[in-house]
Amino acid sequence: MARRAELIAIGRKLFAHTSYDALSMDDIARQAHVAKGLIYYYFQSKRGYYLAIIQDSVADLVTYAASGLELPPVDRVHRTIDSYLRYAEHNQAAYRTIVSGGVGFDAEVHAIRDGVREAIVATLAEGAYGRSDIAPLARMGLLAWVCSVEGAAVDWIDRPELSRDVMCELLVRTLGGSMRAIEEMDPTYPAPEPARREA
Amino acid sequence: MARRAELIAIGRKLFAHTSYDALSMDDIARQAHVAKGLIYYYFQSKRGYYLAIIQDSVADLVTYAASGLELPPVDRVHRTIDSYLRYAEHNQAAYRTIVSGGVGFDAEVHAIRDGVREAIVATLAEGAYGRSDIAPLARMGLLAWVCSVEGAAVDWIDRPELSRDVMCELLVRTLGGSMRAIEEMDPTYPAPEPARREA
Repeated sequence: MARRAELIAIGRKLFAHTSYDALSMDDIARQAHVAKGLIYYYFQSKRGYYLAIIQDSVADLVTYAASGLELPPVDRVHRTIDSYLRYAEHNQAAYRTIVSGGVGFDAEVHAIRDGVREAIVATLAEGAYGRSDIAPLARMGLLAWVCSVEGAAVDWIDRPELSRDVMCELLVRTLGGSMRAIEEMDPTYPAPEPARREA
Repeated sequence: MARRAELIAIGRKLFAHTSYDALSMDDIARQAHVAKGLIYYYFQSKRGYYLAIIQDSVADLVTYAASGLELPPVDRVHRTIDSYLRYAEHNQAAYRTIVSGGVGFDAEVHAIRDGVREAIVATLAEGAYGRSDIAPLARMGLLAWVCSVEGAAVDWIDRPELSRDVMCELLVRTLGGSMRAIEEMDPTYPAPEPARREA
């Protein structure tokens, strides 16, 4: 298993800024200093290897987003968005793949992306409403915001005209706006104080 | 040219609820009652045909979104979002393709999607600020909102728990929230009155 983790760590570096198509298995084996057969042994195919890499890298993102429970909500949101943007910045190729839904047949990458979205929606719901099982309207409002972050982050890594701090502040504020929109339509989901105060 | 338009109209019906992979050129030719060669003549390949269909169908969406200049801003936004959701509802397969970035090699579908996004951002900017050439922060705020609509609409057609009216109201309100977030960070882009009043 150590070997598998090692190969994934190498793959994360290789694929961080290089797209799936741009690296062949021969390139990968050469740069990783391992026999191609070893990669096939653990991952069956280049696609299997790539999916394992993406899953591993996404796990970091989700873990980080769900951490910091000891922080006040607004700081936690700031930290989550900031770490999300850092992730996009430092794993551009992988991030683009996840958000745009993958390479070729992409049900698996879609599933990974949907998992990240739902994990973030659940984290936001916990933070704002104290539970992750929320009504369809509140869920949709939060999900729409998560999708706005995805789209904004992809655009931002393609043309970084704004600093990460400005991006972060903008997205914290639009989250506040989304939470107030939810509250206006369903008062049983009140926007948390910081979101209300900040407006 | 009439023939080409006719083939596109047929294709829009065929592909409205059927994905790219699920229809072969033989199926298409049979259902359209034309020779396969005719489709190849006009569109070179199945992919070429599909892209022409998507471009045509997207043109409707953009035209509609940019129309209704005579309406008050808030009604216009309502109408635009409503027509956008109707489009997603009635062209599910095509809509999913556009938003998720296409089939196989997808630079062209990405370009179509980016074109739709920028057209909607420009329309929103015209409506709110009286011009479409806006600063990066305001653009990013509007773009993020457009991306939230994309994500929300895809989720909604997959599991339609909310009515179109509720979706529409939610998205109008989150647009208001985004415009206020932009204004808070750059007062030279004030949120239009309805957005401010509605909160």
